Amino acid sequence: MTARHETRLRSATKEVVIGHDRPFCVIGERINPTGRRIFQEQLRAGDLSAIERDVKAQVDGGADVLDVNMGVPLTDEPDLLAKAIKLVQSLTDLPICIDSSVVEALEAGLAVYEGRALVNSVTAEDDRLEWILPLVKRYDAAIIALPNDHDEIPMEVDKRVELTHKIVRVATGEYGIAAADIVIDPLAMPIGADTTVGVTAFETMRRIRDELGLNMTCGASNVSFGMPGRHGLGAAFLPMAMASGLTSAIMDARTPQIVEAVKAADLLLGHDEWGMSWIAAHRAKQAQTA
Amino acid sequence: MTARHETRLRSATKEVVIGHDRPFCVIGERINPTGRRIFQEQLRAGDLSAIERDVKAQVDGGADVLDVNMGVPLTDEPDLLAKAIKLVQSLTDLPICIDSSVVEALEAGLAVYEGRALVNSVTAEDDRLEWILPLVKRYDAAIIALPNDHDEIPMEVDKRVELTHKIVRVATGEYGIAAADIVIDPLAMPIGADTTVGVTAFETMRRIRDELGLNMTCGASNVSFGMPGRHGLGAAFLPMAMASGLTSAIMDARTPQIVEAVKAADLLLGHDEWGMSWIAAHRAKQAQTA
Repeated sequence: MTARHETRLRSATKEVVIGHDRPFCVIGERINPTGRRIFQEQLRAGDLSAIERDVKAQVDGGADVLDVNMGVPLTDEPDLLAKAIKLVQSLTDLPICIDSSVVEALEAGLAVYEGRALVNSVTAEDDRLEWILPLVKRYDAAIIALPNDHDEIPMEVDKRVELTHKIVRVATGEYGIAAADIVIDPLAMPIGADTTVGVTAFETMRRIRDELGLNMTCGASNVSFGMPGRHGLGAAFLPMAMASGLTSAIMDARTPQIVEAVKAADLLLGHDEWGMSWIAAHRAKQAQTA
Repeated sequence: MTARHETRLRSATKEVVIGHDRPFCVIGERINPTGRRIFQEQLRAGDLSAIERDVKAQVDGGADVLDVNMGVPLTDEPDLLAKAIKLVQSLTDLPICIDSSVVEALEAGLAVYEGRALVNSVTAEDDRLEWILPLVKRYDAAIIALPNDHDEIPMEVDKRVELTHKIVRVATGEYGIAAADIVIDPLAMPIGADTTVGVTAFETMRRIRDELGLNMTCGASNVSFGMPGRHGLGAAFLPMAMASGLTSAIMDARTPQIVEAVKAADLLLGHDEWGMSWIAAHRAKQAQTA
């Protein structure tokens, strides 16, 4: 069997390890203005106060890492992202996933970040690899990589696995990045648009785990996009994905049903010794409602 | 890849097919006096009226098949089981899983049953195979088989798979039973006693699916026995098991969280075309609460 990698992320004071023999890593996704008009207006006006509430909600919900995205149209995204990262690091000791499609914003974020960040993300496109991987190496970060090419998302497992091999080859061979620092997004697409995408994602996960031993993460809410009962779908999807090799997800930690499903799957995969975390969480819930 | 089998069950008027490319088969488990003192007393006094309520609850909850067990100490179990089966068949057109550890009770149940039953269960022990398989063949039934020997439950995947091969060899070779009519119980044990049993169960399922293509079922509530938050554990366990090859479970259809998890996993495995069942169930729930 291929060796299975561990990805180490750090803030100034705390380390979080993503791995196949570890509890699932919840990357809280809410510190992101996409689709939030009021938050966007606040950010454009230089008001970052809403971030404080979002950080608290994700931490309280059980996030292990926080995704920070400041993609607001008509702003200086590098400056805003750097400010947001400094603010978040003053509020919590959780490591950060620096999330932008703008290379300059990633660099500005990495420059101010204290610790070892996860960068979100790179694709298998040559120009993206050339722009982003040197940054990842220079700042000793880890990187989320999507096995898609030329803005096209391949729907065949073979193609996704092949592009994953390419990413690993380029990142390790040309840039000296360790395979342990590459976290693949196996691409979970909306099930409502095409009911084969779940099986494709699970099979991609199994192959990447078994052939490459890499860690994986994905946007957990994508799969239920456009469908009713989104929390129920997310709460079934993640345990299935975890059984297939997913070791992390970018998800909203404020949804107890989905967080509980992840914790149950940790226990069922033998990643919660004696069931201590499961039992403790249940006791805390009882104490809350008593 | 090994061909994947379909198991056909029938009542007098309705067919239910268990298969790897089909929606999951929910076998409602509540028509069973185990651990129910009042129900046991009623049955001992010849009062079967509680069965009516239990049948309705399982059918309303979404059961596809009903497990009927009449294991009451100090009763004539064959007579009671035959009466219960006749009663259940007068109440519903769902096929029945005839459940007893007493061979004479299985025979009495099969003798009165109208249709094609599922028999619950046989082990890999030579004497059990010799007693039960001829009945299964004579009545043209299907059979749940547990890969354990001499009342010992093997904790190694290899041993379970080996015993499954033995069961198939004996049932098909010596008794002329089709492999399609053998439904394996891969043995889901309580996770609270040993946190490795989940991985053992999932791996057993994958191997039995990939090497033999057989259908599988298990007692879904076993895994959470003795733990808090049993519904949450069951709702994660079944999707993970389904992703690993489980095609059916004996479960209480009255638990909406677990039934919803199964329906979500059906959709995510591509067994709910266009998501029609998922969307319809969600609409029905909205109508109920409106």
